[in-house]
Amino acid sequence: MIGYLEGKILYRQGERIMILAGGVGYEVLLPSVVSASMTKGPGDETGLYIYFHQTEKQPKPVLIGFNSLEEREFFERFISVEAIGPIKAVSALCIPIGEIAAAIENKDSGALRKLKGIGARTADKIIATLRGKMAVFAGEHGGEPAGPAPVEENFHLLVLDVLVNQLGHKAAEAKELINQAIKRNPAISSPEELFDEVYRGETG
Amino acid sequence: MIGYLEGKILYRQGERIMILAGGVGYEVLLPSVVSASMTKGPGDETGLYIYFHQTEKQPKPVLIGFNSLEEREFFERFISVEAIGPIKAVSALCIPIGEIAAAIENKDSGALRKLKGIGARTADKIIATLRGKMAVFAGEHGGEPAGPAPVEENFHLLVLDVLVNQLGHKAAEAKELINQAIKRNPAISSPEELFDEVYRGETG
Amino acid sequence: MIGYLEGKILYRQGERIMILAGGVGYEVLLPSVVSASMTKGPGDETGLYIYFHQTEKQPKPVLIGFNSLEEREFFERFISVEAIGPIKAVSALCIPIGEIAAAIENKDSGALRKLKGIGARTADKIIATLRGKMAVFAGEHGGEPAGPAPVEENFHLLVLDVLVNQLGHKAAEAKELINQAIKRNPAISSPEELFDEVYRGETG
Amino acid sequence: MIGYLEGKILYRQGERIMILAGGVGYEVLLPSVVSASMTKGPGDETGLYIYFHQTEKQPKPVLIGFNSLEEREFFERFISVEAIGPIKAVSALCIPIGEIAAAIENKDSGALRKLKGIGARTADKIIATLRGKMAVFAGEHGGEPAGPAPVEENFHLLVLDVLVNQLGHKAAEAKELINQAIKRNPAISSPEELFDEVYRGETG
Repeated sequence: MIGYLEGKILYRQGERIMILAGGVGYEVLLPSVVSASMTKGPGDETGLYIYFHQTEKQPKPVLIGFNSLEEREFFERFISVEAIGPIKAVSALCIPIGEIAAAIENKDSGALRKLKGIGARTADKIIATLRGKMAVFAGEHGGEPAGPAPVEENFHLLVLDVLVNQLGHKAAEAKELINQAIKRNPAISSPEELFDEVYRGETG
Repeated sequence: MIGYLEGKILYRQGERIMILAGGVGYEVLLPSVVSASMTKGPGDETGLYIYFHQTEKQPKPVLIGFNSLEEREFFERFISVEAIGPIKAVSALCIPIGEIAAAIENKDSGALRKLKGIGARTADKIIATLRGKMAVFAGEHGGEPAGPAPVEENFHLLVLDVLVNQLGHKAAEAKELINQAIKRNPAISSPEELFDEVYRGETG
Repeated sequence: MIGYLEGKILYRQGERIMILAGGVGYEVLLPSVVSASMTKGPGDETGLYIYFHQTEKQPKPVLIGFNSLEEREFFERFISVEAIGPIKAVSALCIPIGEIAAAIENKDSGALRKLKGIGARTADKIIATLRGKMAVFAGEHGGEPAGPAPVEENFHLLVLDVLVNQLGHKAAEAKELINQAIKRNPAISSPEELFDEVYRGETG
Repeated sequence: MIGYLEGKILYRQGERIMILAGGVGYEVLLPSVVSASMTKGPGDETGLYIYFHQTEKQPKPVLIGFNSLEEREFFERFISVEAIGPIKAVSALCIPIGEIAAAIENKDSGALRKLKGIGARTADKIIATLRGKMAVFAGEHGGEPAGPAPVEENFHLLVLDVLVNQLGHKAAEAKELINQAIKRNPAISSPEELFDEVYRGETG
């Protein structure tokens, strides 16, 4: 739905910022790393990429803001980890994403445990789910290359990303669809084929 | 709710496009045939007709974009087929709608099975549900005329279309309302009469 | 939420109209009496008062358009009749609201049964629920005055109207709250007192 | 989501006002103290801070308007009292918030019982929940200082406020998360530590 907002900053209070666009003030929640990187204040024009969070249990939309599509994409992968929802991720992103990405690629669970709200178990889940898929975000923090992620893991993530963030499936549900598709057709070797098989399975 | 968006293209990534209107960036999902037909890119002004998808299970709205009202109307009929939801239809529309319409009118199940995510069973359901109703979209791909659809089939579809896409009934529920109305009053011969009977039945 | 839209008409198709405001095209459903009164077409600027319909069962908002606040207010009272939801009311409003109001005030069930989708039982419910409260809409169609509605019935309707249309209670639920409040405190003689008692009952 | 609206007043009717922003008229419900303080009318430009109310049971959003962020913040604390929902609070705020704050700080249950819809039991709940936390709003109505609220009560409220109003938790649920966090780690002495412990508890 809403993926970007640009306009005048009406106010900033801790991790809360309000952007006035077309006469409407939109309240946006900033991960602390994004808030820390923002120098602008009330009266300045700005633009933020938005993750639009709305679920059955919580129909009141929460808008989460990022400086770039890349930051938002990192966030969308981060919340594909079981037990990390968007709200928990907002407080966990308190150091530059490059450092978090490097910690994941380097299996540095200690570094991940320093993120707000991330305990030992969740740190291990993050590494198990995302290792090999975050190097693109590590940048100059480039961790010791975990070696190229096996090809099929990469396109699995791509399809997972579209199923969850574009097509509104829940993360667990989307993973189940992908696993069943691969069981039905292990020879799958591209996102398109995987997509086909996921939907063929859905209806036959 | 939202049926059209016009503004500057902020970005395009595969089947995803963002349109900036009034300071708000709306994320739109494009069926591949629509994406393939779009030559514009970031910075260009464009306009898209929107199918606004939001359900109880999936309250986070998904906006699906089309070049014309006609393409959107084809899509709305296509998703009236049982087991074809909006998201599945987005990946299935990967060839021009005229060709799909012609395949339906010509009972060409083989051609339909080439659509992404469409298996044999679904192809048969598409033909059983839509044949005789899609000639208007076949255009120069005009299939071997299936002969004019029986009059009452046409206005059934019209009423079905309004019940589902305007009045928010589920496809199956709307079909049930129509069937009961016709059982109560087989002499019905116009959309208005059918509408009357559908609502008379609802409350008496 | 949305109570009014103004902008350029993008298209009109039967009872469907799209209004472009701030780069966003909003799809609006028009009761036939409203559609019949509209002379404008694509390209013209217009403004419509909107009834914003959204429920748990049907989260996809439906926008229903009116020429005036008065027409919308008539609609809001009309849908307070049990078994008449917004969508059914859209097709029922096919003659000027003054004539419908007069038919209600004159207990003319025959005239009401000519409204699309309104059978005998619903016609009687309309009269039982609204008689004495619709004279204000009858205008020159002024029916034989039903005599001033008893004072307390008028402010009951006012409180009912706010509970349903502003505060989102369901019609049946709101009526129950009002009945219990009056049972607890029969001496109530103003909307404020009734409101107080309704909320005192809610929590004590 | 929406936290502010600015534009032309289309109409005012009792506690209802409509603001036209970008071609869209937004209907806003005003607490009577806010409505009483507004001198502007149809045709005037105005701006209101908005509390966006939307729940599972009531998906149709209700927009509640305030003159300032401070008034809105008072409202957000007021509705953290068990049994006081946003709609009930709208009718209860019928005297200046400074006076209500002073009544709370002075344990003046009699004054609170004069608020619309507030009975004896709810008045006591308001005092039990908010006393020591509302002095900031008492201003010149400054009640007899209740003595500085114990430090940890202040940051509990801060965390509660973010959990409910930013992160969409229900008030009761948020209080439970905070109580458990403090049981696990009584030494907590800052909002950040409390946040960490709340989320560590959520997933471990």
